[in-house]
Amino acid sequence: MSDYRVVGQSVKKIDAVDKVLGKAQFAADIQFDNMLYAKVFRSTVPHGILRSINIAKAEALAGVVSVLSGKDVPGANSAGIIVKDEPVLVKINEKIRKIGDPLALIAAETEEIAEKALELIEVEIEELPAVFDPLAAMTEAAPKLYDDGNVLAVRKIRKGDSQDAFGQCAVVVENEYRTQMTEHSYIEPEAGVARLDGDVLTIWVSTQNTHFDAKEVARNLKIGLDKVRVIQAATGGGFGGKLDISVQIHLGLLAMRTRRPVKLVYSRTESIINSSKRHPCIVKMKTGADNTGKLLAMECTIIGDTGAYASYGPGTLTRSAVHATGPYEVPHVTIDAYTVYTNNPTAGAMRGFGVPQVAFAHESQMDILAEKLGISPLQIRLQNAFRPGAVTATGAELTQSVGIVPTLEQTGAVAKTLIGDTCAAAKGTKKRGVGIGSMWYGIGNTGLPNPAGAYVNLLDDGTVLILTGCADIGQGSDTTLAQIAAEEFGINIEDIRVVSADTGVTPDGGASSASRQTYISGNAVRLAAQAAKKVLMETAASMLGVTPGEIVIGNKVLSVRNDYAQSPALTDCRTECRRDLGLTTRQKELSVGLVNCIAECRSTGKLTMGHGWFNPDTTGLNPDNGQGKPYATYAFATQIAEVEVDIESGEIEVIQIVAAHDVGKAVNPINIEGQIEGGCTMGLGYALTEEIKVNAGKILTNNLATYLIPTALDVPEVHSMIVEEPEETGPFGAKGVGEPSLIPTAAAIANAVYNAIGIRFTTLPITPEKVLAELQSL
Amino acid sequence: MSDYRVVGQSVKKIDAVDKVLGKAQFAADIQFDNMLYAKVFRSTVPHGILRSINIAKAEALAGVVSVLSGKDVPGANSAGIIVKDEPVLVKINEKIRKIGDPLALIAAETEEIAEKALELIEVEIEELPAVFDPLAAMTEAAPKLYDDGNVLAVRKIRKGDSQDAFGQCAVVVENEYRTQMTEHSYIEPEAGVARLDGDVLTIWVSTQNTHFDAKEVARNLKIGLDKVRVIQAATGGGFGGKLDISVQIHLGLLAMRTRRPVKLVYSRTESIINSSKRHPCIVKMKTGADNTGKLLAMECTIIGDTGAYASYGPGTLTRSAVHATGPYEVPHVTIDAYTVYTNNPTAGAMRGFGVPQVAFAHESQMDILAEKLGISPLQIRLQNAFRPGAVTATGAELTQSVGIVPTLEQTGAVAKTLIGDTCAAAKGTKKRGVGIGSMWYGIGNTGLPNPAGAYVNLLDDGTVLILTGCADIGQGSDTTLAQIAAEEFGINIEDIRVVSADTGVTPDGGASSASRQTYISGNAVRLAAQAAKKVLMETAASMLGVTPGEIVIGNKVLSVRNDYAQSPALTDCRTECRRDLGLTTRQKELSVGLVNCIAECRSTGKLTMGHGWFNPDTTGLNPDNGQGKPYATYAFATQIAEVEVDIESGEIEVIQIVAAHDVGKAVNPINIEGQIEGGCTMGLGYALTEEIKVNAGKILTNNLATYLIPTALDVPEVHSMIVEEPEETGPFGAKGVGEPSLIPTAAAIANAVYNAIGIRFTTLPITPEKVLAELQSL
Repeated sequence: MSDYRVVGQSVKKIDAVDKVLGKAQFAADIQFDNMLYAKVFRSTVPHGILRSINIAKAEALAGVVSVLSGKDVPGANSAGIIVKDEPVLVKINEKIRKIGDPLALIAAETEEIAEKALELIEVEIEELPAVFDPLAAMTEAAPKLYDDGNVLAVRKIRKGDSQDAFGQCAVVVENEYRTQMTEHSYIEPEAGVARLDGDVLTIWVSTQNTHFDAKEVARNLKIGLDKVRVIQAATGGGFGGKLDISVQIHLGLLAMRTRRPVKLVYSRTESIINSSKRHPCIVKMKTGADNTGKLLAMECTIIGDTGAYASYGPGTLTRSAVHATGPYEVPHVTIDAYTVYTNNPTAGAMRGFGVPQVAFAHESQMDILAEKLGISPLQIRLQNAFRPGAVTATGAELTQSVGIVPTLEQTGAVAKTLIGDTCAAAKGTKKRGVGIGSMWYGIGNTGLPNPAGAYVNLLDDGTVLILTGCADIGQGSDTTLAQIAAEEFGINIEDIRVVSADTGVTPDGGASSASRQTYISGNAVRLAAQAAKKVLMETAASMLGVTPGEIVIGNKVLSVRNDYAQSPALTDCRTECRRDLGLTTRQKELSVGLVNCIAECRSTGKLTMGHGWFNPDTTGLNPDNGQGKPYATYAFATQIAEVEVDIESGEIEVIQIVAAHDVGKAVNPINIEGQIEGGCTMGLGYALTEEIKVNAGKILTNNLATYLIPTALDVPEVHSMIVEEPEETGPFGAKGVGEPSLIPTAAAIANAVYNAIGIRFTTLPITPEKVLAELQSL
Repeated sequence: MSDYRVVGQSVKKIDAVDKVLGKAQFAADIQFDNMLYAKVFRSTVPHGILRSINIAKAEALAGVVSVLSGKDVPGANSAGIIVKDEPVLVKINEKIRKIGDPLALIAAETEEIAEKALELIEVEIEELPAVFDPLAAMTEAAPKLYDDGNVLAVRKIRKGDSQDAFGQCAVVVENEYRTQMTEHSYIEPEAGVARLDGDVLTIWVSTQNTHFDAKEVARNLKIGLDKVRVIQAATGGGFGGKLDISVQIHLGLLAMRTRRPVKLVYSRTESIINSSKRHPCIVKMKTGADNTGKLLAMECTIIGDTGAYASYGPGTLTRSAVHATGPYEVPHVTIDAYTVYTNNPTAGAMRGFGVPQVAFAHESQMDILAEKLGISPLQIRLQNAFRPGAVTATGAELTQSVGIVPTLEQTGAVAKTLIGDTCAAAKGTKKRGVGIGSMWYGIGNTGLPNPAGAYVNLLDDGTVLILTGCADIGQGSDTTLAQIAAEEFGINIEDIRVVSADTGVTPDGGASSASRQTYISGNAVRLAAQAAKKVLMETAASMLGVTPGEIVIGNKVLSVRNDYAQSPALTDCRTECRRDLGLTTRQKELSVGLVNCIAECRSTGKLTMGHGWFNPDTTGLNPDNGQGKPYATYAFATQIAEVEVDIESGEIEVIQIVAAHDVGKAVNPINIEGQIEGGCTMGLGYALTEEIKVNAGKILTNNLATYLIPTALDVPEVHSMIVEEPEETGPFGAKGVGEPSLIPTAAAIANAVYNAIGIRFTTLPITPEKVLAELQSL
């Protein structure tokens, strides 16, 4: 695939064996002597003021060791990724804003005792009128969750003059799309263990961002950040839901108070009630094109219900706004995205981060426009797709690594063959259809600094130790980062050990979110490796009588570059270099083994270690018009779905998905295929079955019997196609794929359903009930 | 004491509280579920060939899980710091060279079962003639331990023409001195625990050099260095004796084989028999001076019995040779130092590393010369002491930080007052005397590269995480390194966490030996901190509208330097700088808080982290004449001892010691005083009571009832005086003090005994028996 030895290889995940053997230690597996078990007492009221709390009976229960309430939080008593609005424990006379708000903590000798003690806590809550609809919440009359009102953030994007441009359009399509609240449904609910050793508080936790966790713990416990050590336990998925604080601070409080190890493991129901959700969104979108299908203008209003607390809400809706055009150049754009507080469950980050919602809208719009213009869905996309030189709605020019066109071309070509064959299979009450969905996705946090650091140490025997803050939550970042370092040093993946996401030793890697780690931590690791390698290259150059620039590193060998080695001018060149280097003896060798070169470094007192950090080249977005460069690079994708709709039952089966993803460079192709297959499956659930149903702030679908995720039998054949448009600033050209794999799936399925039965659904999920209702109303 | 805030302060050791509370986890304290206990089956023969080993009965014992012998070592089966001559487990038909050589390993469910299993192992050993006297070992006829003969290394130093120079001398003194074998007597015998997690073998061990240990384990187990993690457990002293491999490889073998955690803790006797010892030395020294006392020539032959294995032997004897002149300029020098193998216990590194032996000789010689010339011991030393510009025996010029003269002056002055008073107290059968001893000591390994690395991370709240390979064995390096980083960042020691000596995360720090860590790891930490600080300074400069060079870092504040801030030219200067920095608004502030400055770094996507490594500026020594620059810097000291000799019992009591040490800069004065007091106590034991008695290779004094170390009642008043001659290349001027504190003590005591009773002892220890015998022979 390339000149690379390790990058581009489908190496086995370095954590695979331990996981397959059941040896990986998830937080719930961690046991310490003398350990206590924690439970959280939570509000059952969606909006109110905590007037009193009586913990006396709970404290008196035999086996209860500690009961804490708001007054026991020594520090800020507020957490949150963007806004510090979430109380650690609601204090007396302070506000409760959702069902599940934590009011007290219990640590007891057993989980059962802690559970029983929960029932002994008595609270008085003054209930307040609540608001559960984001549109209602935006009105003046609505009950206010915060003094500043319920609109947490507004993101405006203005490019050109859309109002005027709509006048030029031959065709204009305007629709309102609604997407549902969904649950991450990671296989492992939130869990952690805390232990105080001397003055250092260590917390093992299932998390996507240990360094954020440590800062929140330090701030709320009022202790130095150096005295908090958050270690990521083996983590069974995150998908954005483990970016928020869950058990971390509560565990820290109890461990500090009791001076005993404490464990807190959420049940599935506790996890569903208290973790953040995907924002349910209302997307009003108006799109206009000329009579050739060329997009001229778009206007879009997005309203995201962020629930009671901000979490990643403003970031999510900003991302919705930035991506609302889809991967198409639109000259005139007006976008407004509102992040609105309600007394619903908190919505935050979830794989795709606001983009699946707008992708459902813009991809539906594209199909409708194409149909109106009598051109194919593929054609209208190809016509408008970003190409190098295109300018996005935020005014950013895309200069290179713009792979949307190849994803369209390749999926289109393959789909023709594959789907042509199978569409014939539909018969009787089963109607088949094909639909397309495209997407773009900015890598990294939107217009914000989000650096990652790494340390890399090349050891005496040519093996390498990497310290990275990047949490591997199952996505495979440990393996990817090892591959990047292996490539840089010319060694094998087996020669590398990765220590990740341990704030006691690793530098900050930022969140494992925003599909950012391959690009950002990948660059940090590469820079750190290069710093370590510099000494090595200089030493090899000195040993071989050339300059460092003439050395290449191969399979555990450092060699004089071929062009130099074979050039007739080599003798002169090397003589010259030798003179520069002060060498007096003629060097005959053209290469030196890695281990010998390291030995030479050591024998001259040199260590081969380095640090590196990388921050993507972005700017903030102008608050008035959203102009700026929110990302350093973008991923692109197109998926084509084939569905079969049973018009008797309303059931939709996804037969197959063809998914082409521009990842810049596939560091680990099989891992990327895994991401694509997983993303398509999650997208399928988003399209067809998944919905968190909430009534008056209370989640009704609080277990996996009522919240329906796809089962193995629902997963279609996924034909993954990796497109590589190398990103100049990426590590070996890589960008990312984690979220993109999910984003276009629901849109493609919805378009396929339309193709099959001629009904366009503008709300998700497209359940059998909705299908039947629509079919019956025809 | 200086402009520094934290450096120079007697801050509390950062590990003090845990140790005082009994919370520090020594290796013997570490427990794991399902843990096995190991024992080592050892040779009782000093020289032989292992002909057979039968482990069947031991294996058959209920509760025995594994019995390993030489054939079970997958890798090199050889360990050693300088020469890889020590078998991990002697193989069949290979050589046994000392009593204690390991022949088999047992892992059992309990320590008792393992102990019982030892008795069931049967071996056949073909005994060979042995040699126990180093002089005999050097003869042709001696039994050879190795094919190459018994002389392991010869170090020659030649400066000028000593033979000719002796002709010019007014007085020449020639004597033979003999020093005994001694034991480190650390409070904690060797111990460790190993556990295999996935493919990573972790070993917790009491050690002075985790990174060396990891390399030896990897080489002998034939696994990647990245897959071996050696973590220093809390360590109860080392003094050089925990530089050698003890339990590490044995534990690794058993953990890999059994796949269960394994613990191995030596008894005191096992520790004494198997750990390295201080080299017993024969020092023949001839010293000549002119009639004013000016030294003209010296010749010296040193023979060190290194026992059966090399350990640090050649390094130790090289150090003896390099330091044999004492801290005096001698124009004509001839020195030969021999490291000789015998079938005695191995001698290796011990606090002072060959220098206490030669100090006893050269300081005795100085007193004898002074007496012959009728000048005072202080006068002859002052006359010859190194001063800046002096050239050592190896031809190295001492340019700065040469503090021997102030130590002489200051001890002399104080001793006059102190001892003048108390000498009068002697009466009856008790004779009092005063003696002086001086020393010099090169910091770091002799003429060898010995770099150390560190990572430093300045966290968001202005606290700092240091990763250093430096093992704190009780000497206080964690605290010293924290002080250096705290000074560099303008923060407090409480704001720092030090992670040390864990090969899984820390870079190589080299050995905690050679009094090198303050200087070398101190510099590495400082360089890493400066790399992290660079970003901070640039950011502060940008915030304040000046250049980074105009920023100073104070007590958690970054400020414009006073000379700039107060200068009338400031306005111009800042305007100029602002223009360079592209600033458009006038900066009014003259300072910014550390945490605010870090926040500004983060908000511009910058991390404040760094790596650093430092290798002292030395050269190798010429093998023919020993010329070269063996050390980058030297410590100097003078101690004056007052003794009282009971002429009836022969007992010597040390009344008080005045000890002045040039440490460059005292990073932590109270810690240095602790080192000095400890060193004087150890030197007292060396002078008077301690001796490992060996008969035919067997240690007779194998417990602390027969091997006599000073008790609390034996410890004299020690008057510590810190001399600071700042070392330009040291961190904040620091050098080191760990070993120097011990080196001159025995010499001073011996000179004081002469002063008291007129008898010069040329062998150590000066026991009551020896004193009485000499008194009776008068």
